[in-house]
Amino acid sequence: MELIKYIRDVQDFPKKGILFKDISPLLADGNVLRSVIDQMSELSKDADIIIGPDARGFLFGTPVAAMLKKPFIMVRKPNKLPGPVISMKYDLEYGSNILEVQEGMIKPGQKAIIIDDVLATGGTTRAIINLVESQGATVEKIVLLMELEELKGRELLAPYKVESLIKIKK
Amino acid sequence: MELIKYIRDVQDFPKKGILFKDISPLLADGNVLRSVIDQMSELSKDADIIIGPDARGFLFGTPVAAMLKKPFIMVRKPNKLPGPVISMKYDLEYGSNILEVQEGMIKPGQKAIIIDDVLATGGTTRAIINLVESQGATVEKIVLLMELEELKGRELLAPYKVESLIKIKK
Repeated sequence: MELIKYIRDVQDFPKKGILFKDISPLLADGNVLRSVIDQMSELSKDADIIIGPDARGFLFGTPVAAMLKKPFIMVRKPNKLPGPVISMKYDLEYGSNILEVQEGMIKPGQKAIIIDDVLATGGTTRAIINLVESQGATVEKIVLLMELEELKGRELLAPYKVESLIKIKK
Repeated sequence: MELIKYIRDVQDFPKKGILFKDISPLLADGNVLRSVIDQMSELSKDADIIIGPDARGFLFGTPVAAMLKKPFIMVRKPNKLPGPVISMKYDLEYGSNILEVQEGMIKPGQKAIIIDDVLATGGTTRAIINLVESQGATVEKIVLLMELEELKGRELLAPYKVESLIKIKK
């Protein structure tokens, strides 16, 4: 099954000049979705906890956690999770963003695997790694549906282990 | 397994006077999460398609779709899904909201099951039903993790079939 066939290119979304990779066709094929979840689960079986960011990380993180019967921990935008929370601010090309996790959800010594839909520049993933490590846990691996190789997110995340099911050159 | 033990009450979140039902402890127990997904899957096995709204509907919708190898269709807030999209505006207590689904994802004659985390007044679910029916599909059932019975969402959604795993009186 060639997964890339299920990713739709959309020109100029969400703004002019951006080539958006739409995962809707992949989600809309039940057999393909199941295959993706099975592959991600195989890659995640050594985790103590699965971490997924709001919103598209939820699409792949909870299925993997449910398959493996492992804890799923949400990482969300500000004011979405009831407190107390730990916040992590990180820089974007223009401006900055904040991600939050609830205090006490990630425990010292746990091996975490971060699951998300896409690796672009790696800035968001880097912020999640910082959140995990601030709790005394370690990041075992980052598991992604797809990787936009041109943006070199893998280099920003080195030496962390990065696994992606779909590698997109351009 | 008494699921309600895994829901945490948070007073005054997201604003004063609201008693928030936090699902984080439920997601953070792998066995409980799996049991919830198995129960929701059993309730959803007659669906042609599974529909879940952004963001917490994603947490339960894709795992069920992956378990059953059925299509998962995202319903999202405006400007999140690349077009063309169908938009549905609906009223809230103060103001209004818009939900979107991509054109062509829901096909005429399909039996849809809507999955979400919580049924409160039912306004959001009602808007999703309208979206589904505008595409010539039918809503077979609404499957929810929990139901806040006091808010009478079930009455607003009648005669649609509503199944919730946790019934919360107050």
